[in-house]
Amino acid sequence: MTSEPTIKQVREAAERIKPFVHCTPVQTCASLNQMCKAEIFFKCENFQKAGAFKIRGATNAVFTLRNEEALHGVATHSSGNHGAALALAARWRGIKAYVVMPENAPQVKQDAVAEYGGEIIFCKPTLAAREEGLAEVVDRTGAVFIHPYNDYRVISGQGTAALEFCQEVPELDIVMTPVGGGGLLSGTALTVSALSPKTQVIAAEPERANDAYRSFRAGRIIPSDNPDTIADGLRTSLGDLTFPLIRKHVRDIVTVSEEDIVTAMHLIWERMKIIAEPSAAVTLGALLPKSPQFSGKRIGIILSGGNVDLAQLPWIEKTGEQ
Amino acid sequence: MTSEPTIKQVREAAERIKPFVHCTPVQTCASLNQMCKAEIFFKCENFQKAGAFKIRGATNAVFTLRNEEALHGVATHSSGNHGAALALAARWRGIKAYVVMPENAPQVKQDAVAEYGGEIIFCKPTLAAREEGLAEVVDRTGAVFIHPYNDYRVISGQGTAALEFCQEVPELDIVMTPVGGGGLLSGTALTVSALSPKTQVIAAEPERANDAYRSFRAGRIIPSDNPDTIADGLRTSLGDLTFPLIRKHVRDIVTVSEEDIVTAMHLIWERMKIIAEPSAAVTLGALLPKSPQFSGKRIGIILSGGNVDLAQLPWIEKTGEQ
Repeated sequence: MTSEPTIKQVREAAERIKPFVHCTPVQTCASLNQMCKAEIFFKCENFQKAGAFKIRGATNAVFTLRNEEALHGVATHSSGNHGAALALAARWRGIKAYVVMPENAPQVKQDAVAEYGGEIIFCKPTLAAREEGLAEVVDRTGAVFIHPYNDYRVISGQGTAALEFCQEVPELDIVMTPVGGGGLLSGTALTVSALSPKTQVIAAEPERANDAYRSFRAGRIIPSDNPDTIADGLRTSLGDLTFPLIRKHVRDIVTVSEEDIVTAMHLIWERMKIIAEPSAAVTLGALLPKSPQFSGKRIGIILSGGNVDLAQLPWIEKTGEQ
Repeated sequence: MTSEPTIKQVREAAERIKPFVHCTPVQTCASLNQMCKAEIFFKCENFQKAGAFKIRGATNAVFTLRNEEALHGVATHSSGNHGAALALAARWRGIKAYVVMPENAPQVKQDAVAEYGGEIIFCKPTLAAREEGLAEVVDRTGAVFIHPYNDYRVISGQGTAALEFCQEVPELDIVMTPVGGGGLLSGTALTVSALSPKTQVIAAEPERANDAYRSFRAGRIIPSDNPDTIADGLRTSLGDLTFPLIRKHVRDIVTVSEEDIVTAMHLIWERMKIIAEPSAAVTLGALLPKSPQFSGKRIGIILSGGNVDLAQLPWIEKTGEQ
């Protein structure tokens, strides 16, 4: 896919991935509505296969490949949910998946890739080592590189969550997603603008990894500078394929403090009894300061994922960590 | 209600409480099915109002009262979910709720009662002090005592979860609930035996609080002897109203080790991305030893509640607790 995707590609992606992924439920919570002075609908991608929306884009990319392309498998670099998602999608198609991971990647992330049958290739924890590791794997195996977000097949796949959401909950004033590399955001934005033009798409980003916020305002990509946020899925910078879609279809990008991310995550666990990861909680975090932008609105939140190391929770101080 | 409830009273309860409580969703999890070699359906009462099935029985009891009975409010003793549920049900009816709690009850439980407008009366943490505290309150206020489980109105209300479950998932081989005082179990058992006579009702109980297991086998109530289990909702003993219903309609009671309770709780959080309290996890815990009794069966589990102190998780050792 070489030209910018439209709602047509998102619909095709939805058909393609339908046999594999969940149509996730939408949940609401009276006490959070009251607290945020808004009517909030959560599209629960934390209940998605492999625990995050990432499986949508990965599955669409893997099943878009022609047989001769797929022959030698797929490869990516990822320390997070995309690696596990790609491994699972590849297993469904019966091909190999190679995932380049920094050697200090959390055990729980390594386990997820391995559980789905992915082959892990370790590298030093630098961007250069990661790219070198990937190039080496692609060279050696002939695998097709599937970028975590800067890929139109991935973007179209991520858009399918919003496609379901617009059908499940009509007439939303606002749809919110987190933004890291922009795959979910750009896919959501192009889908919502086509299906529900009056609905605003607004992204939430950690203050401490605010490259999308700055890029959006500057009108050019400004990469992240040492992002340091608990929202580990949002440390990446926008790509040259996601950014134009975001400029075209996104109304605003707001930033969220670390404190509000953790508070929002705790609220989702405590009030909704569901597990959201920090990167997913950033959207609710954006509502906590009660800005007039959100007051009284019908807001759809794509709760992006639920992959958390349950032994490492930000509100619990562990033995020996003082 | 003075005679033993039947499915008729459960249906009436369902009509009565319908405007207030959630019809909770049923969720499944492919990886847990694989692990337990069974097809498991979870009725998610952790998503219920006030975070547990308890609101069903409390609401039915509160709204069964005639106006002149309700006039002076309701009262109970509870260090757990029933206190909060009764407070919320009383608020819905616009009457007062008095909850007698041991002075060492966890802050999070006190907060829940207070949040719903209940009045807390503290007592020493002994059974005698609790009963004395309750008698004093009833005497002083004229409030109606609503027992946490040994009350036919409460039992009928708890049965409404199974009523929904049987409609949502037909032809279950087994329905499982945890058992503490037996309110949920007896209500479930009488409902399932009426609606789906071929379905077996089996209860799960912590090994370390196995009064129901022993009573069921002995044919007479044997109260708990210093129950010491992480499943704090299941430390109570069967009542003289719940026990006969259990003898009549329950197929078996199985016991679960503390280790399996914690493992099951962690699995539910990790795999299903939902929050279940230890008392709710005991049912899945019963499936972990892979007994032939459960193998290959279609099993419905009533996941009873999700009220957990998120700062105190059994798999995390906290600072200063060694």
